[in-house]
Amino acid sequence: DIPIESFQAAYKWEDFKKNSDGMVPVIVQDYRTQEVLMMAYMNEEAYEQTLKLGKMTYYSRSRQELWLKGLTSGHYQYVKELVADCDMDTILAKVSQIGAACHTGSKSCFFNEITKKDYEESSNPLQVFEEVFDVI
Amino acid sequence: DIPIESFQAAYKWEDFKKNSDGMVPVIVQDYRTQEVLMMAYMNEEAYEQTLKLGKMTYYSRSRQELWLKGLTSGHYQYVKELVADCDMDTILAKVSQIGAACHTGSKSCFFNEITKKDYEESSNPLQVFEEVFDVI
Repeated sequence: DIPIESFQAAYKWEDFKKNSDGMVPVIVQDYRTQEVLMMAYMNEEAYEQTLKLGKMTYYSRSRQELWLKGLTSGHYQYVKELVADCDMDTILAKVSQIGAACHTGSKSCFFNEITKKDYEESSNPLQVFEEVFDVI
Repeated sequence: DIPIESFQAAYKWEDFKKNSDGMVPVIVQDYRTQEVLMMAYMNEEAYEQTLKLGKMTYYSRSRQELWLKGLTSGHYQYVKELVADCDMDTILAKVSQIGAACHTGSKSCFFNEITKKDYEESSNPLQVFEEVFDVI
């Protein structure tokens, strides 16, 4: 009952360089806010299903099975864009995230702060310009 | 001759879950634009040096050695924030990138487009609000 939209891919699974587990890590980013939501891994089946359904599908290393994100939680990730890096060993996925990406209920899985420099979080683009201007 | 600024960390290397190569993947994001620049890997030495120098240091899997990013190119990455994910097996680094992150000269390593849905890239925040408003 969920919308399906298939994608054509410019690269085949064979084109990717795999890690020592035979998988490719996928960085998942909110396509609107650019917030990094999570990281997960794909095997060939996950890659093909992601393209076929237009919904992010991974390989769960803990459960050792194909994992259509959102199938149990409803928190689907609709594919907006997939980009590979210069050496074809990492995928960046820009997605439309339904609900929370993290199983903890957090929007993003990245919430355990290790360290932070004291700087102004500038959600206001004007502030960025002002800071650049100050440097100049 | 480059500025050094040490960071205190809330987590020790032992707190991280390592991948099968004994390393932790690091997603590197521009702290101002939120653009994802690259992915690299840290071992313990790289983690400690990153905190000590305030500059991103990785373990180069191809050269099998410690890799202070920018040491040869000048394209240093100054640490702004380090965050770990919910299960402590991935680090997100927000950095101030000098020059290009990619060895190809590209700002970001992610330029090999796999697939893309036709949507408006909204660099203009107003446009995002307008789109949200349309949905409501």
